[in-house]
Amino acid sequence: MATIKDVAREAGVSVATVSRVINKSPKASAASVDCVKAAMSKLGYRPNANARALVNQTTNTVGVLVSDVSDPFFGTAVKAIDNVAQDHGKHILICNGYHDPKLERDSIELLINSRCESLIIHSKSLTDKELIDFANEVPGMVIINRHIPELADRCISLDNRKGSYLATEFLIRHGHTKIACIASSHAIEDVEERIEGFLAAMKDNNLKAPKSHIEYGEPNSEGGEYAATNLLAKSVPFTAVVAYNDYMAAGAISIFEENGMKVPKEMSIVGFDDGLIARYIHPKLTTIRYPIQLMAEKAARLSLSLAKKENIEPEANRFSPTIVRRESVEKH
Amino acid sequence: MATIKDVAREAGVSVATVSRVINKSPKASAASVDCVKAAMSKLGYRPNANARALVNQTTNTVGVLVSDVSDPFFGTAVKAIDNVAQDHGKHILICNGYHDPKLERDSIELLINSRCESLIIHSKSLTDKELIDFANEVPGMVIINRHIPELADRCISLDNRKGSYLATEFLIRHGHTKIACIASSHAIEDVEERIEGFLAAMKDNNLKAPKSHIEYGEPNSEGGEYAATNLLAKSVPFTAVVAYNDYMAAGAISIFEENGMKVPKEMSIVGFDDGLIARYIHPKLTTIRYPIQLMAEKAARLSLSLAKKENIEPEANRFSPTIVRRESVEKH
Repeated sequence: MATIKDVAREAGVSVATVSRVINKSPKASAASVDCVKAAMSKLGYRPNANARALVNQTTNTVGVLVSDVSDPFFGTAVKAIDNVAQDHGKHILICNGYHDPKLERDSIELLINSRCESLIIHSKSLTDKELIDFANEVPGMVIINRHIPELADRCISLDNRKGSYLATEFLIRHGHTKIACIASSHAIEDVEERIEGFLAAMKDNNLKAPKSHIEYGEPNSEGGEYAATNLLAKSVPFTAVVAYNDYMAAGAISIFEENGMKVPKEMSIVGFDDGLIARYIHPKLTTIRYPIQLMAEKAARLSLSLAKKENIEPEANRFSPTIVRRESVEKH
Repeated sequence: MATIKDVAREAGVSVATVSRVINKSPKASAASVDCVKAAMSKLGYRPNANARALVNQTTNTVGVLVSDVSDPFFGTAVKAIDNVAQDHGKHILICNGYHDPKLERDSIELLINSRCESLIIHSKSLTDKELIDFANEVPGMVIINRHIPELADRCISLDNRKGSYLATEFLIRHGHTKIACIASSHAIEDVEERIEGFLAAMKDNNLKAPKSHIEYGEPNSEGGEYAATNLLAKSVPFTAVVAYNDYMAAGAISIFEENGMKVPKEMSIVGFDDGLIARYIHPKLTTIRYPIQLMAEKAARLSLSLAKKENIEPEANRFSPTIVRRESVEKH
């Protein structure tokens, strides 16, 4: 592969001149720009991005860490960030953390070491302390889907509690009093907050929500089947379900139907996320909308501003979920 | 931020010694390793990954270009590649190209300039020539979902023609003779190949497939609604549909149902991809399985081997689709 020295020799100029052309220095003359470019093209010379980054001490890249891009929820987040980045002439670099502390840590290190000055981080496994340390090191780092009080201005999060409160109240308003909750078995704060919201809505309406009415499973379709099967097996009396997400709701619906209970006639259910599958599920799923696209756009803009050290007006970074009414809830 | 000079001063050693420690040179003494590491830790010095990459002329990163990670089809591909990369102790760097030639080109440049030695490229907008040039530059580059004769050993592709041939024959075996085709309006080779397969199966069975039986739309749910509406509006007589993908099939089904035609009783339909939504669609979608996970794993392993200049046994890189029978086709 041709080196910068080869280019200088071919163009008949100094290495410093080639360097000025590569780095678009205003000191490079028009004539030298032309002959250096011609030489680079002739030799197939590729300016080394790493060398360039060293000179500029920055790259044109926005780093994004999510749990798993193959989950459409994170796919939507990544796409929203990519759109904002492109509007600013930046590319994005994406890593998966899979809720694993080592992978999350390695990925953030990789992104920082790749000189991303903007970072949008979805981390569920690292401690607040570790994230605060990273944030201190990278002024353009923003946290998404998590609230850390010390980093409140740089956290974009959802009021999970309010979401499941809304879902539960919606069922109560439709006459349901015996409501079960299908929760995720993952040890992340979202799960606790959503269970809290469910319990609070039941309590505020003087309804009972014994522990037996809460079942857990992996936050996917199979986990929903598992939790729904357990609820039925325990003979828990219920006419409606608040599910942790749309996938668990879909799994639960298939179990109810297989056991001869029509949804929504005999069993109502509310999902969470309003993701890709919500409108493909039969019946179309009534669910809680997680405004992940808006939140990811906000995170990207905030991160770019912070990296440029722009003055940022303090704004509310806690987003609210809303209910999307479709066809999986009926009056009891 | 601390520099390598600060570390050398703090540790009481030369910059060259610090450099040897950072780059794990066997020439660095155990004593110097200890004191340099202590100094780095005290000053919060982060060895610059770019500088390191320059020295090693390589990074630990696998570059991936797909059209859009928010599409679960590509999400699945990326996850499969990530799994293989992790098994080899590598991280992946993901870019979106959105079927746009400039974005595809810029992304490949970014990945090459970031010193990815392994590249898995899904490009639909660049010419064969341009991709061949990139491939010549990067020995570890593999192309996925596209066949370029000059790069046959480095292309992992699907026999699209066979897929739609299978779908059409499946409908014919179920007694259908009047079959419509819902195609994508994107100008990519997959579309042509799938239409070819449809036409070939019709011809081989002495059935007519006039142009009016083919309708086009964006390759998503709305595009499927659009194409199905056009077929109905033209009063084309048909009892079954071969759809370009599962999303278009889902859109078409909703139009048929809205117009009082029961699926599969009065209208049969076969999708393509067997993606995430296929089993959530009602009725569950009979579809053509695109083995994207297997293909992406193969691409990742091939790319890593090529980058290491390992001897590779020539293997078939053209994958075959299969039919997945669910509930959207009935005997006519």
